[in-house]
Amino acid sequence: MSISRWTMLLAAPALLAGCVSIKGNVVAPEMAKDESGVYRHVVLFKYKEGTTPEQVLAIEKAFLDLKNGIDVIKTIEAGPNSSTENLNKGFTNCFIVTFADPAGRDAYLPHPEHKKFVEFVGPYLEEALVVDFVPRR
Amino acid sequence: MSISRWTMLLAAPALLAGCVSIKGNVVAPEMAKDESGVYRHVVLFKYKEGTTPEQVLAIEKAFLDLKNGIDVIKTIEAGPNSSTENLNKGFTNCFIVTFADPAGRDAYLPHPEHKKFVEFVGPYLEEALVVDFVPRR
Repeated sequence: MSISRWTMLLAAPALLAGCVSIKGNVVAPEMAKDESGVYRHVVLFKYKEGTTPEQVLAIEKAFLDLKNGIDVIKTIEAGPNSSTENLNKGFTNCFIVTFADPAGRDAYLPHPEHKKFVEFVGPYLEEALVVDFVPRR
Repeated sequence: MSISRWTMLLAAPALLAGCVSIKGNVVAPEMAKDESGVYRHVVLFKYKEGTTPEQVLAIEKAFLDLKNGIDVIKTIEAGPNSSTENLNKGFTNCFIVTFADPAGRDAYLPHPEHKKFVEFVGPYLEEALVVDFVPRR
């Protein structure tokens, strides 16, 4: 068998895998590699004194739940700060919402589900900090 | 040909693709999916007045370059803030360093390459804000 025949035999499964990967719950190459098509929305919360751990967890859950109601959200990550550097300026909880592009963010901000969340979290917030960026690596 | 024969023919390329994916610059499933094994280190910079766009870009490049010298870094993302909400409190540049776990962060902070970077960026910084978290989704 010639080398080109082997090449074809090796190439075919890779192409096929590209097709089955989505059904097989494997991230497709174009989704995994992405640099284009990723826009990060980083949110930090500083809660008012007296906000209980249960309330903080309920807010995190409500934030994470937004991905079920707002289809421009690709992913949301959330967690309490555990830095050892003491440079968090009182912000104790971080959220990273990922959109495909700034247009996704523009659709998210006025979305009724997002507005409902902002109304819910408002009374607990001392301060919120937001930066958005196109990630370079 | 029986159904099980077809199943085997379809399964084989997927297994093969799993092997070639790393060489083919495609993220392997276990690298792409991760939730365990991810620890986010979010850094925001507010530069001193007079810091030029060229200096800001040089700082970004130096930060991104840390991944070449510090092996506990899984990825670094960086970019200038482009939020429309005006909630960035003067922080204009965001960086997300990803480690496998807090031990990665603990190895990174005192690493000579990181200390060299901190020394380099120090004179330009008005303020830095840092939060680290284990991402929940």
